[in-house]
Amino acid sequence: MNIAVLGTGMVGRALAARLHELGHTVVVGTRDPAATSARTGADGMGRPPFSAWQASHGDIGLATFADAASAADLVVNASNGAASMEVLRLAGAANLAGKVLLDVSNPLDFSAGYPPTLFVKDTDSLGETIQRAFPEARVVKALNTVTADLMVDPRSLGASFTVFLSGDDTEAKATVVGLLTDVGHDDVIDLGGIETARGPEMMLPVWLSLARTLGTSLFDFKVVR
Amino acid sequence: MNIAVLGTGMVGRALAARLHELGHTVVVGTRDPAATSARTGADGMGRPPFSAWQASHGDIGLATFADAASAADLVVNASNGAASMEVLRLAGAANLAGKVLLDVSNPLDFSAGYPPTLFVKDTDSLGETIQRAFPEARVVKALNTVTADLMVDPRSLGASFTVFLSGDDTEAKATVVGLLTDVGHDDVIDLGGIETARGPEMMLPVWLSLARTLGTSLFDFKVVR
Repeated sequence: MNIAVLGTGMVGRALAARLHELGHTVVVGTRDPAATSARTGADGMGRPPFSAWQASHGDIGLATFADAASAADLVVNASNGAASMEVLRLAGAANLAGKVLLDVSNPLDFSAGYPPTLFVKDTDSLGETIQRAFPEARVVKALNTVTADLMVDPRSLGASFTVFLSGDDTEAKATVVGLLTDVGHDDVIDLGGIETARGPEMMLPVWLSLARTLGTSLFDFKVVR
Repeated sequence: MNIAVLGTGMVGRALAARLHELGHTVVVGTRDPAATSARTGADGMGRPPFSAWQASHGDIGLATFADAASAADLVVNASNGAASMEVLRLAGAANLAGKVLLDVSNPLDFSAGYPPTLFVKDTDSLGETIQRAFPEARVVKALNTVTADLMVDPRSLGASFTVFLSGDDTEAKATVVGLLTDVGHDDVIDLGGIETARGPEMMLPVWLSLARTLGTSLFDFKVVR
């Protein structure tokens, strides 16, 4: 498949590398490819610049959000939740129309410091907001409760955990389940329509609490039943 | 221990019976004991009336919220979240002062139908609301992500799951961990102060979604790490 991964952060890099490893043609989308490649210092999170990662992932393209989405069969929204609506507008509704749009983002609001709150919740979700704004995209929410390393290498945890799935398009969800299975996920629960994304998005506060308590992000939730 | 369980619903009944079985002296608190005992029809949830349950649990007392709390060393808030503040006011601040107040309730708002929303969330929680209103009570939030049957018989699920704990009083949390261990819970994670109750309370939407999807409430979350 031709896959666009929108976002050059930790999540975008991890997903792009893993999907490429699985044989897909992957292009990373960014606002300004020349600027992204030219940055040399560590990013705001203290990670190496994108160019360093790019140098060791030469088969993965870098393009504008619009060019990446245009060439893709499937688009991954791996952007910061607060920026996601702008990123997707830049990708362009026409370039998203008819395509599976896998949304792994979280509506985290850091404007009042840490811990963040959620800028949409309970009666709405970021997944639904995206689906409403891009009605022709086939939005599937998944993986937002999983840290990047476990998104792409779930077996490294040593025990099965659950990935939640929400979306209105059954075929799009089946495509995503196929990808998740290829990546190594072995317990996917389809919660229903895109409105069920409210539940997994509202797990972020307990996720952040656990990360602090356990001192690691290498944990996840298994629905025991 | 002398334990008051405030609430005559499914959760209150389950906890009262199990804590009595473990050797504690248990009194169930209700608004009007005579009225509670006199009811003969099924309740709003289609459950048998309290009097039927009471007939087979003769060693468990029934008293007003205030009398139950007054005689107790530890008080369990097993009331409906929407009624909890009124129930605790009726129990009386003086009767709660200095006592462990185990809060298992959820801030569910059914006023707009099903699924419910949360009437407090994200920047506050019902656990914190209770602690602020009753500053001399030693509030511990726990078990709100667990269905009644698994609260009192966790091993019946056949696999370990996680109970989250939040509270400002270390000794009170240790008392609750002791009770949870006696009941059979084998994985309790102390998230920190009472403000961390926001996380587990915000798990209710995904819990409700899973209950619908799985067709059972006999499931729970294991934090795999």
